[in-house]
Amino acid sequence: MEIQFLGTSAGQPTKFRNTSAIALKMLNEFNEVWLFDVGEATQHQILKSDIRSRKVTKVFLSHLHGDHVFGLPGFLASRNFQGSENDEGGVPTDLKIYAPRAVKDFVNAALRMGYAKLDYKLHFVELHPGVIFENDKMKVTAFEMNHNLPTFGFRIEEKNGEGELQIDELLKLGVKPGPILGQIKSGAVVTLDDGTRINGKDFVLKRDGRIITYIPDTKFTPNILEAAKNADLLIHEATYDASEAKIAKKHNHSTNIQAAQNAKDADAKELVLTHLSARYMGKSASEMLREQAAEIFPNVSVARDFTEISIPQKKAHK
Amino acid sequence: MEIQFLGTSAGQPTKFRNTSAIALKMLNEFNEVWLFDVGEATQHQILKSDIRSRKVTKVFLSHLHGDHVFGLPGFLASRNFQGSENDEGGVPTDLKIYAPRAVKDFVNAALRMGYAKLDYKLHFVELHPGVIFENDKMKVTAFEMNHNLPTFGFRIEEKNGEGELQIDELLKLGVKPGPILGQIKSGAVVTLDDGTRINGKDFVLKRDGRIITYIPDTKFTPNILEAAKNADLLIHEATYDASEAKIAKKHNHSTNIQAAQNAKDADAKELVLTHLSARYMGKSASEMLREQAAEIFPNVSVARDFTEISIPQKKAHK
Repeated sequence: MEIQFLGTSAGQPTKFRNTSAIALKMLNEFNEVWLFDVGEATQHQILKSDIRSRKVTKVFLSHLHGDHVFGLPGFLASRNFQGSENDEGGVPTDLKIYAPRAVKDFVNAALRMGYAKLDYKLHFVELHPGVIFENDKMKVTAFEMNHNLPTFGFRIEEKNGEGELQIDELLKLGVKPGPILGQIKSGAVVTLDDGTRINGKDFVLKRDGRIITYIPDTKFTPNILEAAKNADLLIHEATYDASEAKIAKKHNHSTNIQAAQNAKDADAKELVLTHLSARYMGKSASEMLREQAAEIFPNVSVARDFTEISIPQKKAHK
Repeated sequence: MEIQFLGTSAGQPTKFRNTSAIALKMLNEFNEVWLFDVGEATQHQILKSDIRSRKVTKVFLSHLHGDHVFGLPGFLASRNFQGSENDEGGVPTDLKIYAPRAVKDFVNAALRMGYAKLDYKLHFVELHPGVIFENDKMKVTAFEMNHNLPTFGFRIEEKNGEGELQIDELLKLGVKPGPILGQIKSGAVVTLDDGTRINGKDFVLKRDGRIITYIPDTKFTPNILEAAKNADLLIHEATYDASEAKIAKKHNHSTNIQAAQNAKDADAKELVLTHLSARYMGKSASEMLREQAAEIFPNVSVARDFTEISIPQKKAHK
């Protein structure tokens, strides 16, 4: 499971940072990539990455400012070509778009004007606070942010999973290898010949799921803390630095310091700052943003375009 | 007067070519830039060029396939910022968009979903065959092409202008420097003291206007020849090479050879090929396209992103 930043600039692209897009790669887990926001030229960024558009099964749009959405029509159109021309053949899978409602008009107007017909289906899901997606592997919850139009942050939770069976411990207790191990692993209670009762549940390790939180354009709201509670990785917008707190508030944005405070208050484990104003150009500006934030929350970095962060599987435990 | 290619790829961007956009720079003439087609990430290409968005006063869209239009909302939004933040201050001038009608829905949906309000006005002009713009300096005529949706080629004509007054010849005839020269230049007929009659019109040199023709996505139609008649520069789509004539026809596109034949038949002076399929990657492919075309029309080149071509002022003549 990896996060890759495809765009890290606020408002407009710069020569060095594209507008917002974040890929959540879950290729090893279940061979899918999810996109969070699709700023203009996201398809160009994907071209420069190892991501293949047809692997993208879900798109989540935090809000409908152009710098988070204008890349969507081009991405959808190019994904169509990829399906029919690459070595796997066939049409791409359907795509779900989780977004405020008005995106549908935009996408439809874009496709209609070009007489375009996609070979795959689009499913639009209107965003609302609460759980917006859940299956046996993942859960995504949307939280209302505090920006100048409807905006949602996302808490992406991997379901807790089962780890391996503790075979060594079972052998010590006198269990013989054989079908009985399967029964134990499935959680059954079995009684050995010597009368020992073994509860399967005690011998299967558990593995906690990973939690990633994405806080897009917003000024402070307590929802940020709820969304980011114990997150393994908190991706937080930081349009401005500490000295620009007034401007940040006026434009309904966060500073690097506020992001760090939120990470600390939410007991997040790691913080990445993104969505930087064009005024922070070059390595020294980026290092300044990091250093200010690190005084409050040390495990912080500043994303660049194409920065990739692994979120390793957690250790199994009893 | 210069043409700069901002995107030269067909259908989808590649790592080396962006989708269609062409800038006509007339900064020395009347301080404006016109854009022809605005593929996704045109604003990114502009960032890498010496063009300033606020100098763009007109946008012409040949047709509404995504690879010619999807950059428009981002361009419009960023142009708004440029107006208020750059050193000249103030809001950008109004912008005219000449395009098939459906573009209006697309632009409005894009702006509305983001609650965006531009500080300048957009004027939409629906394309139709014939003269679509004319003032004392320029005339633009649209020609119907033969693609799979309404598509227009453009003939951009600079008005014929007056060159300098032939002062040396007038002095030889006995004209004395003074206000009389102004009268002669304005075309008046004056009589000198010795009875010599001088018709102003005979002593003011004329300068023929330049003609640029842009032929976008299309298979052959006689309208191409009319649009390109005597053009100083013919920009012609060449999605495919000679060996792919069947595919070109099927997809309603042109080959490099057809473009060259059109340039020859229309008596154009120079030909530039653009809108290349992604299959033509690298310098050797591009050279192959050029060489095939040069057998029919020698003064031909293949555009790359950021290629700039000067169209020099013509010599003044009697």
